[in-house]
Amino acid sequence: MTEFRRDPIVGRWVIVTSEEPLDVDQFHQLYPPVEKRHPEKCFFCPGKESATPPEVYAYRPNGGEANGPGWQVRVVPNKFPALVIEGDLESRPIGLYDIANGIGAHEVVIETPDHFKTLADLSFEEVFEVIKAYRSRMNDLSQDPRFEYILIFKNFGAIAGASIEHDHSQLIAMPLIPKNVKEELEGSKAYYEYRERCIFCDMWRQEKEERERVVYENPFFITFCPFSSRFPFEMWIMPKYHCCDFREMSDDQAMELAKALKDALIRLKLLLHNPPYNFVIHVAPLKGMYDYYHWHVEIMPRISRVAGFEWGSGFYVVPTTPELGAKRLRDVIW
Amino acid sequence: MTEFRRDPIVGRWVIVTSEEPLDVDQFHQLYPPVEKRHPEKCFFCPGKESATPPEVYAYRPNGGEANGPGWQVRVVPNKFPALVIEGDLESRPIGLYDIANGIGAHEVVIETPDHFKTLADLSFEEVFEVIKAYRSRMNDLSQDPRFEYILIFKNFGAIAGASIEHDHSQLIAMPLIPKNVKEELEGSKAYYEYRERCIFCDMWRQEKEERERVVYENPFFITFCPFSSRFPFEMWIMPKYHCCDFREMSDDQAMELAKALKDALIRLKLLLHNPPYNFVIHVAPLKGMYDYYHWHVEIMPRISRVAGFEWGSGFYVVPTTPELGAKRLRDVIW
Repeated sequence: MTEFRRDPIVGRWVIVTSEEPLDVDQFHQLYPPVEKRHPEKCFFCPGKESATPPEVYAYRPNGGEANGPGWQVRVVPNKFPALVIEGDLESRPIGLYDIANGIGAHEVVIETPDHFKTLADLSFEEVFEVIKAYRSRMNDLSQDPRFEYILIFKNFGAIAGASIEHDHSQLIAMPLIPKNVKEELEGSKAYYEYRERCIFCDMWRQEKEERERVVYENPFFITFCPFSSRFPFEMWIMPKYHCCDFREMSDDQAMELAKALKDALIRLKLLLHNPPYNFVIHVAPLKGMYDYYHWHVEIMPRISRVAGFEWGSGFYVVPTTPELGAKRLRDVIW
Repeated sequence: MTEFRRDPIVGRWVIVTSEEPLDVDQFHQLYPPVEKRHPEKCFFCPGKESATPPEVYAYRPNGGEANGPGWQVRVVPNKFPALVIEGDLESRPIGLYDIANGIGAHEVVIETPDHFKTLADLSFEEVFEVIKAYRSRMNDLSQDPRFEYILIFKNFGAIAGASIEHDHSQLIAMPLIPKNVKEELEGSKAYYEYRERCIFCDMWRQEKEERERVVYENPFFITFCPFSSRFPFEMWIMPKYHCCDFREMSDDQAMELAKALKDALIRLKLLLHNPPYNFVIHVAPLKGMYDYYHWHVEIMPRISRVAGFEWGSGFYVVPTTPELGAKRLRDVIW
């Protein structure tokens, strides 16, 4: 079985080449499971608070001093930031090219004080606090009129780009809109103008009806392997209510997102031996009206080196179908 | 130093975060050098010709039977193809989604009979024969009216997606146009309509004038690290004559491309200890007029795991400037 599948939002084609039945073990040799080895050197552990820049957010359920132990979630500026917070944005041409100074914010969300726990191991309530930290930092940073977009993402494992093994996610506030976000906005706007409906709402409704690619569902969220997945076992978590703005999420909704996220990550961990992964929270830009957009989370396991040539070509070959992937993920008992 | 840089063709922003001076050794710990270890199991070595599908092209300077030894370059269909050559293209919707059967051709260009040599180690004349093989296969496959695009790329090293260690490149002929190609076409068309000039021609002329990012130049080609590189030591090889169609390259031009390609790869090998890399030949689609486009080669070293979060976000953070990268590449003596 080999076929082309087209993503309806951005028009990306992928080649799906799976043969049934899916042998999950074939993937295991492609990557080492993520391990936690060096607590002694870790600056994200409790007691080392002074080794990071001063915190900008913390959740201390039992109280305690700022920048001391006792926190459950802690957000600090990145010590080696990709962007710097000071200054005004200046953009200028160099012949054909454009250049702008690197204004922005780059923060690290330390998700747990426990060096050996992963986000997948946390309780619903603990993941809920991580999501509340995201929401709070987005709300705060979006007050800065220089910023156009806030990107929240997690790199889990060195293969996925994590340079520090203590579980954390990252937040980058920037004065421009990334190209991939623009593409999603354009695609969903075109659909909205043509059909007068949200493409993401239509997508999750179709997934719910077909069931084949659904992994999990709760009152506010649905998790599925997208029809035109770029990666084996890719999952999207989508709100079942129409909203473009992550910041508007209520506490009730945030708790259901915590359940969906924990569920997706623990299934991935158990099925694939703690594989490296990335997730990215796709949200609307900070300024302007994006009624046609719908925020969601994309989880991308980094288990298939085989698919090397999409770099630079933008063309993905996926060695398993999302239908088989979803089935295997659904079958995980935890 | 941290700054945003914008690619003028597709509008992609990257963050460049380098501090001078560039310490090349910092990269070495991020990837293992590519090694050749298992000639005994190799189906691409001479004498094993019957283990591959029958050849569709070969260069045998001293004669010899088809599908026997004596070849210098050999092209065979991929034994595990992403696409199959038989059948008519059928496309249909599934609700929101589109699906098409996997019609296409997937071929492997075995670049040398020597298991232990890399493309970088070959002579100009040997690389020239590889390029002639690309051109010949493109010419042949473009006769098939079902195909819209031919993608030629090389994965070097397991990290870059190579599943077989004997040096080879790949060719995929497909019935659709990849998204990234469409984006380049749209960007260069918009520029052409606005300025009545080719953006790629303007780009290489600016590079030639600025010199800072240029690595190599010969009568027909120029190699430079692009202004908005996504990867450390990324290089583009661009014809200095305006042409969208790789197939129209003369033998004289192909020989100069061979020199440019060999030069780029040997510099990469010597500077970075035989790193994994991908290259992709960007060409116009097979059907239609693309006068505003300009074919070129993009070489992407796969040495920086650090930059994990561009997956899914499309937003690149590059830990070195192309100016410093080009300087180090220029300084390599071979």
